[in-house]
Amino acid sequence: MSDKVKVAVLGATGMIGQRFVQMLEDHPYFEIEGLYASERSEGKRFADALKVRDYVYKQETLDMRIKKMDTKHISEACRVAFSGIPSDLAAETETDLAQKGVAVYTNAGSHRMDAHVPIIVPEVNTDQFESIKDQETYSNGGYIVTNANCSSTGIVVPLKALMDAYGLNQVFVSTYQAISGAGYPGVPSLDIVSNVLPFISHEEEKMESELAKMLGTYSMGSFNFADFKVMANCARVPVIDGHTESLVLDLKDTPSLQEVADTLASFRGEPQKLGLPSAPEAPIIVRTEENRPQPVFDVYAGTPVRARGMASTVGRIRQSNGYYKMWVVSHNTLRGGAGGSILNAEYAYRKGLL
Amino acid sequence: MSDKVKVAVLGATGMIGQRFVQMLEDHPYFEIEGLYASERSEGKRFADALKVRDYVYKQETLDMRIKKMDTKHISEACRVAFSGIPSDLAAETETDLAQKGVAVYTNAGSHRMDAHVPIIVPEVNTDQFESIKDQETYSNGGYIVTNANCSSTGIVVPLKALMDAYGLNQVFVSTYQAISGAGYPGVPSLDIVSNVLPFISHEEEKMESELAKMLGTYSMGSFNFADFKVMANCARVPVIDGHTESLVLDLKDTPSLQEVADTLASFRGEPQKLGLPSAPEAPIIVRTEENRPQPVFDVYAGTPVRARGMASTVGRIRQSNGYYKMWVVSHNTLRGGAGGSILNAEYAYRKGLL
Amino acid sequence: MSDKVKVAVLGATGMIGQRFVQMLEDHPYFEIEGLYASERSEGKRFADALKVRDYVYKQETLDMRIKKMDTKHISEACRVAFSGIPSDLAAETETDLAQKGVAVYTNAGSHRMDAHVPIIVPEVNTDQFESIKDQETYSNGGYIVTNANCSSTGIVVPLKALMDAYGLNQVFVSTYQAISGAGYPGVPSLDIVSNVLPFISHEEEKMESELAKMLGTYSMGSFNFADFKVMANCARVPVIDGHTESLVLDLKDTPSLQEVADTLASFRGEPQKLGLPSAPEAPIIVRTEENRPQPVFDVYAGTPVRARGMASTVGRIRQSNGYYKMWVVSHNTLRGGAGGSILNAEYAYRKGLL
Amino acid sequence: MSDKVKVAVLGATGMIGQRFVQMLEDHPYFEIEGLYASERSEGKRFADALKVRDYVYKQETLDMRIKKMDTKHISEACRVAFSGIPSDLAAETETDLAQKGVAVYTNAGSHRMDAHVPIIVPEVNTDQFESIKDQETYSNGGYIVTNANCSSTGIVVPLKALMDAYGLNQVFVSTYQAISGAGYPGVPSLDIVSNVLPFISHEEEKMESELAKMLGTYSMGSFNFADFKVMANCARVPVIDGHTESLVLDLKDTPSLQEVADTLASFRGEPQKLGLPSAPEAPIIVRTEENRPQPVFDVYAGTPVRARGMASTVGRIRQSNGYYKMWVVSHNTLRGGAGGSILNAEYAYRKGLL
Repeated sequence: MSDKVKVAVLGATGMIGQRFVQMLEDHPYFEIEGLYASERSEGKRFADALKVRDYVYKQETLDMRIKKMDTKHISEACRVAFSGIPSDLAAETETDLAQKGVAVYTNAGSHRMDAHVPIIVPEVNTDQFESIKDQETYSNGGYIVTNANCSSTGIVVPLKALMDAYGLNQVFVSTYQAISGAGYPGVPSLDIVSNVLPFISHEEEKMESELAKMLGTYSMGSFNFADFKVMANCARVPVIDGHTESLVLDLKDTPSLQEVADTLASFRGEPQKLGLPSAPEAPIIVRTEENRPQPVFDVYAGTPVRARGMASTVGRIRQSNGYYKMWVVSHNTLRGGAGGSILNAEYAYRKGLL
Repeated sequence: MSDKVKVAVLGATGMIGQRFVQMLEDHPYFEIEGLYASERSEGKRFADALKVRDYVYKQETLDMRIKKMDTKHISEACRVAFSGIPSDLAAETETDLAQKGVAVYTNAGSHRMDAHVPIIVPEVNTDQFESIKDQETYSNGGYIVTNANCSSTGIVVPLKALMDAYGLNQVFVSTYQAISGAGYPGVPSLDIVSNVLPFISHEEEKMESELAKMLGTYSMGSFNFADFKVMANCARVPVIDGHTESLVLDLKDTPSLQEVADTLASFRGEPQKLGLPSAPEAPIIVRTEENRPQPVFDVYAGTPVRARGMASTVGRIRQSNGYYKMWVVSHNTLRGGAGGSILNAEYAYRKGLL
Repeated sequence: MSDKVKVAVLGATGMIGQRFVQMLEDHPYFEIEGLYASERSEGKRFADALKVRDYVYKQETLDMRIKKMDTKHISEACRVAFSGIPSDLAAETETDLAQKGVAVYTNAGSHRMDAHVPIIVPEVNTDQFESIKDQETYSNGGYIVTNANCSSTGIVVPLKALMDAYGLNQVFVSTYQAISGAGYPGVPSLDIVSNVLPFISHEEEKMESELAKMLGTYSMGSFNFADFKVMANCARVPVIDGHTESLVLDLKDTPSLQEVADTLASFRGEPQKLGLPSAPEAPIIVRTEENRPQPVFDVYAGTPVRARGMASTVGRIRQSNGYYKMWVVSHNTLRGGAGGSILNAEYAYRKGLL
Repeated sequence: MSDKVKVAVLGATGMIGQRFVQMLEDHPYFEIEGLYASERSEGKRFADALKVRDYVYKQETLDMRIKKMDTKHISEACRVAFSGIPSDLAAETETDLAQKGVAVYTNAGSHRMDAHVPIIVPEVNTDQFESIKDQETYSNGGYIVTNANCSSTGIVVPLKALMDAYGLNQVFVSTYQAISGAGYPGVPSLDIVSNVLPFISHEEEKMESELAKMLGTYSMGSFNFADFKVMANCARVPVIDGHTESLVLDLKDTPSLQEVADTLASFRGEPQKLGLPSAPEAPIIVRTEENRPQPVFDVYAGTPVRARGMASTVGRIRQSNGYYKMWVVSHNTLRGGAGGSILNAEYAYRKGLL
C-alpha cells in the first residue's frame, strides 16, 4: 500500500484543476484520492470533461469519475487539497477545509490578501511559510497557502534575483496574456480573434499588490510589503498558452547587461537546492537570440520532464535611459497556476509541514 | 480639365502604397497620375496586386496598370510623390526625386533622421515644415517630408496634448502591433498564430528618437529634440490591423484623471483648424468603457468618412503611484502610414508649399 | 411625418439583431420603432450592448434605449417585426406576434419547418410567399416568413441558377463557418484558436432539409421538397465573418465550365428585377483568380453600398470525374442572417404584403 | 561502436527535415550521420535554425552543425537519406543519390508519379515495395521510396480499411489544412489570420492521383491505379498543426455505422504486426464524442510515445442518403510527412531492404 500523501483536486473539470491532475500523475510524494467539482459534473468521467489539450493523460486517470465537492469527506480522506476552483466559491470552501484540518494549496485569489495567508513562490519566499503558523486553523493541521496570480508568478523569480543583487525601485510591466488564463469557456472568440483586450478584471491591482507582498517579509505576525513600485498594464492576446510580459526596471545599482544575464541564469532557490520533483533545474532560462522569448517556443521551458512549463524564460535584456528592459515568457497554468501550488506542497512535504 | 495636383504613388503594389491609393480616390486636392512599382509588376492591373482587404476600390482604380518606377518621368508628370516603398530602396529614389523637383511625402524611414528632413504629424509639429527650406533641393521645388513610424504616430498626438498641458518627463510604452505593419508577405503565419513576437527590428529605437524629434523644435537650421525620455518595448501580435499601445506617463504636473481626459478629448491641431479633407474632427477619441480601446472596435475611429482610421482612441485612463496609465489604439497603415503623409500633403497644399 | 413602415427589432443586443439595425438605418421603406431584448437589457443604450465591429452606427442609433420585449406593445406600434432572437425563445414569441397581426420576418430556425411557413431567399423562391396565406393568422395580417440558416443561404442562389439551367442531382458541401455565426458570447476562444470544430449542432440537418424546401415548390397547401440530395459536413473555423463552402455538384446536364460561370454571373432574381434597396446588382459574383473567393476579400461583396455583404462569391469552378467543383463565400450575418429577412420584407413591401 | 544504420537528413533547416530529426533521436535502427541543407545554412547550429515548436530536442542535437548538401559525401557515409527538401530541388538530388547507391526515403513530391517509385503508407501497401526492384539504380543498392502528400496520408489508412471490408466507389473529401504544411516561411500571416485560403497548388490533383496509386497494385512492372473516384477540395485554415478532413464515402456494401466504427478501430497493418518502433498501436483511433476529432485534442494521437502524431483520428461517423460521412484529423508533418518516411524505412530495415 502506497504511503504517498492523499490529495484531493478541487475544480477538476476546469483548466487549472486539470493541470493539477497532470502534475500529480505518478507524483513521488502525492496520490490523487479524488477529483472534485460541482454537483453538475458528479459522476462524469474525467475524459468527458477534458479541457487540457496538450497533455496525454493515463487511461486510468481518464477513467476517474468526478465527485461532488464535500468538505467533510475530503477532510477525512485527504491531508491536502489542491484547489483550482473559482475565487467566489473558494473563499468559503477553502476556509472550511482548513478548519477541518486540511492543508489547502490553492490557485484561487480569494485568500491571497488575508492577514496570515502567504502567497508563495518557493524560489522567492519560502520564509513566508512562517505565516501559516499564525492561521487560526493551524493547531489542528489545517491552513491555506496560495500561489500568486499567473502574471505575477511569471516575473517574480527574475525580480527576486535582480532585487537581491542590485536593489529594485520600480517595475513597469505590460502583459500579453494567454486566453487559457481566463479558464473555460472564458474569453469569447469574437472578443479575441485578431484583437487585443486591454482589460483583465483586477489583474493590474493583483500584480501591484501580490508582487510587493511576496517580495516583502513576514515578521511579528504580519506581512511587510516590499517598497518598490509596480505600474502594470494587463491585456489579453490571441495566444492559447503562455504569458509574455515586457519589463522596464529601475534598479538601485547599475550592473552591466552581462551581469544581469548572469545573475538571472545562475539564480537558484530552495526548490533547486532541495531537488523538489517539479522544480526546474534552472528556474530562469536566459536566451540570447534577438527575437526570444516567444510563447510558441518557450512556454514549456524547464527540465527535467516533470518540470516542463515551470521555468520562466527571459530575453532581449537591454538598457534605455538608465532603465533595464527585458521580456519574459512563462506558462500561465503550469508555473503560473497548478504547478505553483504543487511546488509549494512539495516544499511543505519536505519540510514536514504535511 | 482638372486642376488638381498630379501625384505619383510609389510602391503601389504594397500595403502602404494601396492605402495611399485608397485615400486618393476622389481626393479634392490630388489626382493620381500613375501607380509605380518595381519592374516585376510593370503592366499588372492594380486589381491583380490587391492587398488591402477592407476597402472597395472604384472599378477604374482596379483597372489602372502599374508602371515601372522612373524618376525622370515622375518628375516631369507630377508635383508630388507619395512613397510607400521599402526603406532600402527609398533612400536613393526619394533623394533623386527631390533633386528633380518633386515634393516627396513618404512613409519610408530612410530619411527621417536627416538633418533637414522633418517627421510631421500635422496635429503636432507643422512648424517643423520650416526645415524643408533648408533642404538643398528646395530651391528647385523638391523636398522630402516624412511621416513617423506607425507606433510613434499612434501616440504622438496624445503625448503632444498632455505635454503642452502638463509637461512630460518620461514615457513607458509597450506595443501590441498588427501584422499589416510588416507589409506583405511580411510576418510568416507560423511565427504569429497563437504567438507574440517580442521583437520588431529597429522599432524601439525609432520610437525613442522619432517622438523626441517630433515633439522638439526646429530652429537655427537644426532640430532640437524634446528632452523627455522614452522607454519602448515593441511586439507583434496576431491582429490584422490596428496597433494597441500601453502607456505609463510621468507628467510634470498632477492633473486629475478627468482633466487628462478632457485635455485629450478637446485637443485640436492645425488639420482641424484648417479643415483638411483627411483630418478627423477630433484627432483623439476618449472612451470611458472599462475595456476599450480595442482594435476590432476602434481601429477605424475618425469622422467624417474620409478620415476613418485617422483618429487615435484613448481609454482606461488611470493613475498608479503618481504615474498616469492609459491605452491607445490607432490604425497603423492609415493614420500610422499612408494617411499621415496624405494629411501632411494636404497641409502643404493649403500653405502653398506645393 | 414619415410614412415609412414602423418596424420592431427583436433581439437587438445580439449579433443578428444589430445587423438588422445596421441595415435599417436610413432605410427607404422601414423605420425602427423600437429595439427589443430581454428584461436584462432594458434601458441600456444600444451603444453599450455593441457587438457588431465593422460598421459605424449613427449617433442617434447608438443613443437608442433597449426596450423589454412586449408583444402587445409591439403589435400596436409596428406592422413588422424583424427577429434575431434565439430559436427557443422565438418559437412562442413569433407565434404570439403573428397572432396579434404582426408580419414577422425572422432569422430564427424555430418555424422554418412549419407547415405553411416559407423559408425565403427572394432570388430563389418568392413564389413560396403564397404559403403565408395559409397561415391561420394571415386573416388578421399576421404571418411568419423565415430566412434560411446562414450556410444554406450562401449557396442556394448558385444552386438555383444551376438547377434551373442544368438540373441538379446531388450536392456535396463542406462548410468553413465563421465564429460570428454562433452569436455572442458563442464559441469559446479556447475551442477555436488554431483549431477546427467539426460539429455545429443541427447545422447539417438544416442544410439538408432547408435547401430542399427552398428549391421545391408550394402548391395545394403544402411544400414539396426538391428531390436532389444534400450531403453536408459542417465545421467552424477561426474566421470572424464569412462562411466559406466547398461544393461538389452532380448536375443532370454537362455544361462547359465557361457555361457554368456565365450562368452564375448572369443570374438575376426578383430582387434585381424589382430593384429592391438591399438587393445586390448581381447576386452571384464569379471570380477567376486561382485563389478566390476568400472571406477577407469577398465577405462584403455586393453593390451598391446598401447591398454590401449581400452577394455570394463563387470561384475555382472546376470539373473532376464528371462532377462540378467550386467554392463559395458569403456573409453569414448579412446575406445569411439579417440581410436575408430585410430583403424578404422589401419584397413583401413592394408586393403589398405589408 | 553503434551498428545502427547511418542516415542523412536532407533539408534539416526546414519544417519536415526537423521532424525527421525529432523522430530519429534515440532511434533503435537509425543514427544521424549528418544534417544537410543548402550552402546558405552551412555551419549553422541546428538550434539556430529551429522551426519545430512543440518538441524539445536533446542538447547534442541542438548543437549539431548543418552541412552543405553533397551527394558524393552522403553516399559514402550513409546507407539511407531522409529527404525533406523542396520538390524542385528533390527531383535531381534524389535521383543522384539513388544512382550513387543510397536508399532515399522522401517526403518530396517530385518522384511520386515515377514509373517504378512507390508511394508507401505501410499500413496500406507494403506490397508495392516490389516496385523498387524495377528501379534502374536498385542493382547498386540505390532506390527512392516516397511517402504520400499530407492530406492523402491522413485518410488513406481509413480508406484502406473500409475498401477492404466494404468496397469503395467514390470519395468526396474537403480539407482544412494546417499552415505548417506549407513549410516555413510558407503562408503569410495576412493571408490566413481570420481567413480561409481555398487553394493549395496541385494539392487536389495529388490527392486524386496518389490515393488511387497507393490503393492500387503493382504488378508486371507497372502500377495499376485503384478504380474508385476522388473528388477533392483543399483549403488552408488558421491552424498550426493538424489536417482536418471531411469525408463522404460511397461504399459498395451497406455496413451499419457500428460496423464501420469497428472496422476502423480494429484495423491493423504491417507496421503493427511487425511492431515497428514508430508504428502506432492502433493506426486509426475512433472517437465517439459529438465534436471530435479536433486538431487541438487529436493531432498527437498515437501510442507509444515514439508514435505520437502517427495515428489518424476518425469521428462523427454518420450516414446521409446512403453515403457514409466522417471526419478525420491527422498530424500533417509527423504522420503526413517525416513520420511516414521513417515508418517506411523501419519496414525496409526489418525486411532486409537496407
